[in-house]
Amino acid sequence: MKITNHIINLKTVATLDFIDITEKIQEKIKEAGIEKGVINIQSLHTTMAVIVNEAEPLLISDMKKLLEKLAPRTYKYAHDNFDIRTVNMCDGECANGHSHNKAIHLPTSAMMNIVENDLQLGRWQRVFAVELDRSRPRQIALQIMGR
Amino acid sequence: MKITNHIINLKTVATLDFIDITEKIQEKIKEAGIEKGVINIQSLHTTMAVIVNEAEPLLISDMKKLLEKLAPRTYKYAHDNFDIRTVNMCDGECANGHSHNKAIHLPTSAMMNIVENDLQLGRWQRVFAVELDRSRPRQIALQIMGR
Amino acid sequence: MKITNHIINLKTVATLDFIDITEKIQEKIKEAGIEKGVINIQSLHTTMAVIVNEAEPLLISDMKKLLEKLAPRTYKYAHDNFDIRTVNMCDGECANGHSHNKAIHLPTSAMMNIVENDLQLGRWQRVFAVELDRSRPRQIALQIMGR
Repeated sequence: MKITNHIINLKTVATLDFIDITEKIQEKIKEAGIEKGVINIQSLHTTMAVIVNEAEPLLISDMKKLLEKLAPRTYKYAHDNFDIRTVNMCDGECANGHSHNKAIHLPTSAMMNIVENDLQLGRWQRVFAVELDRSRPRQIALQIMGR
Repeated sequence: MKITNHIINLKTVATLDFIDITEKIQEKIKEAGIEKGVINIQSLHTTMAVIVNEAEPLLISDMKKLLEKLAPRTYKYAHDNFDIRTVNMCDGECANGHSHNKAIHLPTSAMMNIVENDLQLGRWQRVFAVELDRSRPRQIALQIMGR
Repeated sequence: MKITNHIINLKTVATLDFIDITEKIQEKIKEAGIEKGVINIQSLHTTMAVIVNEAEPLLISDMKKLLEKLAPRTYKYAHDNFDIRTVNMCDGECANGHSHNKAIHLPTSAMMNIVENDLQLGRWQRVFAVELDRSRPRQIALQIMGR
């Protein structure tokens, strides 16, 4: 039984950037030398999700619209009211209530099977890191377990 | 430590078919002979979700309505505009933008505990494969790890 | 390879109670003595979710509003029509269609990495059990695997 931990470093470009991380994950599985097991693909951020879906650009534009409709940037979130908020305030705090509210409807992590030293994927399945906040450096942590 | 991989083959009947796969999963756990561990129940499709909820028919009808409201079939998705779409086009491509848009709000996989050679379930918990597209053959992949 | 199973007992106070269970989980990881591996944090209820997000009170109030908007208490769910419902009826059955309908949009479990004998968490990540039904006793099951 082997257990290995890896970090994928990303730089996102904009709100609702969908980054296909499938190949990066597959490389780490090869590196780890694990024939069969599982991999947990975990966002280390409260405003970045990990989803599994199809890499079709028009579909991604549809999904962006749906997420925006669900938790619009234009809505006044209490989290963004810096006149009353006292908790977790940082230097240069930005309004990102919409990002967190998009996030609760999306998974923080994806657990996937490893078979034959590769990710077990259906024909159209790809893994995306989805930026729900603004452009920033991001990290996805991978835990690979198996043998 | 044992790791076993299994496929559950399904034939769905209609859009938003909820198929209770709990017993099929329990059989595979018995077969695998794993006393304690975890099981990853992974859809191999971008328009089929795996959810855990109660098997009450009226509730399922409520959930279907909510999913339909969230990503209606009647909405014009860019993914379904075959005049402009060029990526991932197959023979007999069907309009299923609504299916993918339902899918991003639902889990692709469920990770569950195994205790005493059985799925650890709360009183009302059942596992469903949910068809978000039309009637078709489907596969759910199970990875069972433990001892 | 060790595999241990734990139960966290909770008493929720009200609908949409967000209970930060991060420390309780961290204690169980220490107890289990597992250096690296994974932990599956599984709700044993169909109307309790497990989410990972930021512990900022105003943000939590925003999320409650969004969940309420998505599946309002005021909507007439078929699950709550006790004149026609026959399945899974208990003594003192309460109307909780809204709770289940909130639940399908939220994860039942969170799978997280364990590194250096601790939960691998990003700077703002906390784990919450979210009560979608009324005040009641609740259980979260933890499966810890690793070595």
